[in-house]
Amino acid sequence: MSRAAIPVSPPLKDELDIVIPTIRNLDFLEMWRPFFQPYHLIIVQDGDPARSIRVPDGFDYELYNRNDVNRILGPRSSCISFKDSACRCFGFLVSKKKYIYTIDDDCFVAKDPSGKEINALAKHISNLLSPSTPLFFNTLYDPFREGADFVRGYPFSFREGVTTAISHGLWLNIPDYDAPTQLVKPLERNTRYVDAVMTVPKGTLYPMCGMNLAFNRELVGPAMYFGLMGDGQPIGRYDDMWAGWCSKVICDHLGWGVKTGLPYIWHSKASNPFVNLKKEYKGIYWQEEIIPFFQSAVLTKECTNVQECYIELSKQVKEKLGPIDPYFGKLAEAMVTWIEAWDELNPPKQAVSSTDVKPVKVQPASKSK
Amino acid sequence: MSRAAIPVSPPLKDELDIVIPTIRNLDFLEMWRPFFQPYHLIIVQDGDPARSIRVPDGFDYELYNRNDVNRILGPRSSCISFKDSACRCFGFLVSKKKYIYTIDDDCFVAKDPSGKEINALAKHISNLLSPSTPLFFNTLYDPFREGADFVRGYPFSFREGVTTAISHGLWLNIPDYDAPTQLVKPLERNTRYVDAVMTVPKGTLYPMCGMNLAFNRELVGPAMYFGLMGDGQPIGRYDDMWAGWCSKVICDHLGWGVKTGLPYIWHSKASNPFVNLKKEYKGIYWQEEIIPFFQSAVLTKECTNVQECYIELSKQVKEKLGPIDPYFGKLAEAMVTWIEAWDELNPPKQAVSSTDVKPVKVQPASKSK
Repeated sequence: MSRAAIPVSPPLKDELDIVIPTIRNLDFLEMWRPFFQPYHLIIVQDGDPARSIRVPDGFDYELYNRNDVNRILGPRSSCISFKDSACRCFGFLVSKKKYIYTIDDDCFVAKDPSGKEINALAKHISNLLSPSTPLFFNTLYDPFREGADFVRGYPFSFREGVTTAISHGLWLNIPDYDAPTQLVKPLERNTRYVDAVMTVPKGTLYPMCGMNLAFNRELVGPAMYFGLMGDGQPIGRYDDMWAGWCSKVICDHLGWGVKTGLPYIWHSKASNPFVNLKKEYKGIYWQEEIIPFFQSAVLTKECTNVQECYIELSKQVKEKLGPIDPYFGKLAEAMVTWIEAWDELNPPKQAVSSTDVKPVKVQPASKSK
Repeated sequence: MSRAAIPVSPPLKDELDIVIPTIRNLDFLEMWRPFFQPYHLIIVQDGDPARSIRVPDGFDYELYNRNDVNRILGPRSSCISFKDSACRCFGFLVSKKKYIYTIDDDCFVAKDPSGKEINALAKHISNLLSPSTPLFFNTLYDPFREGADFVRGYPFSFREGVTTAISHGLWLNIPDYDAPTQLVKPLERNTRYVDAVMTVPKGTLYPMCGMNLAFNRELVGPAMYFGLMGDGQPIGRYDDMWAGWCSKVICDHLGWGVKTGLPYIWHSKASNPFVNLKKEYKGIYWQEEIIPFFQSAVLTKECTNVQECYIELSKQVKEKLGPIDPYFGKLAEAMVTWIEAWDELNPPKQAVSSTDVKPVKVQPASKSK
């Protein structure tokens, strides 16, 4: 008797896009093939649009270069950074899926302590599909994981948890250090596999890294703007931090959860600390004022969706951070432009047939299977 | 050539007491001998004072039973619980050391994933002697651990950290579940070794378990009151939770840190879930109001030391929790009594020679080496 093979569809196969910002050929995808091939990729090509980027055969992808960004967004393309991985958020904008996983092209498959290759995407999906617990700390970490639960003294009324908006994964090998720490500890490698996922508590900020990150785009997408960085801007390498601060404040306000911990990826290459220092140096002192700003930011009850929260935050950025540097005035305007672009490309579902909404038709430069 | 042996003194040997509440012979100490023998033990004997408790040879200890508690504290002995592990806090009161480690007598030496026996005490000491980071979440966990650091985006002004007041350790094998969870998952065992220590962020409460706990007694001792539990009280098994909520609110106010995670001990025996349910049942619904109370408790700027904070908290307990049940009025009074007892047994150092301070002479029942 032969058994009928029951094909198992990869989880969220038709509900998740993988967004990759890059300036080079995507050979790194070969190692991810067993895990990524069933999914659709959105590749955001940074830098010279004339350059051709090679994508390994067999992947289903669309690729956007700067010309595409300009064509699709018109004057609003000013909110998308150039020559900085911040450009990845353009991929979030044009996706039509409920979930996003974004990964850098120098990140490879890591192994767990037993030597097994880690399917980072699958773990992010399970993180996103199980609740978060931002209101009270569980000492045995993720209570929804097999073999764990809420410990004695955990209020029962909090045990349903809240919807998870963001899953922040970590990195083995090259840790995500700033330039000064890179310079001081050039040889430090992260070899510690911490077998835990936890919720970042409500009211607590964390440094969100964009290297290995998943989120519920339908829920929190409009808050995932990576700011004005790179070419023509006084700052770089704070794109993901910016998105992390804004999105955490908004998740806290709207009652959603942010997880950090597993899964790990293998981060292969340290970027140049001297180049990084130049990009970061304004961020390093600005963050001393930016973080207290976000720690004390209060959104009013009137802000009931992400867009409203984000616009309100942009006003506070202009008012409170503007005095630090004219850059923050520009950034606050770009935040508004981003929301306009988001709403144009992602009209509210109930308004799709309304006559006053004209969705832009997105024509990706390349699309193949 | 023979090398001269340089004796290494165990860390904090003369600055730390190990406090053990018990009702039985302390054979469990045999397994801890390599790690505990250099330290002084304070044994708090619960239940019938006529019973004799055997302590393995070679340990330096003092032992207090209920008669000793009554003799030493007089009318103030009413604040020390009877027939409940809450009595352990009497040991904190009579200690003269800077640090306390407290452990239950059903806790044994655990092994790390490499099979090596874990010196839980040594790890607690290193946790207490290195700073905490309550103001911002570090995604690579304890930044002061070897091989780790602060990640990109962590404000430099926060990197000194703050003084650590509490080190909360975890448990392999029998997890610290409440009675309902024990009943639902009688066979669940904690087998996951999470190789991390982290700071519980400022403003976040956690369920502090007294099984495997260390703290800076000089700093936070007066907040480590384990409440009124057990015999004659309507509630049990919330002693450590009570101390955890109070001490966390006070640490947050005074700017000290609380760590949780490593080290693990091996928790050998699950307590009876039916008995536990009877002890816990009022706590289980009271905590739904107690936790929001502590989450919103605000201490004024006038509260500049632990005693002042604790007295202020007792007033708020009486006012805000009193309406739930007369028990909280009694508990609020016991909190005041506890502070009076603390101040009597631990007169401020600068006031030791003052004529109006009459330190009580503590005469332990037994003392041996």
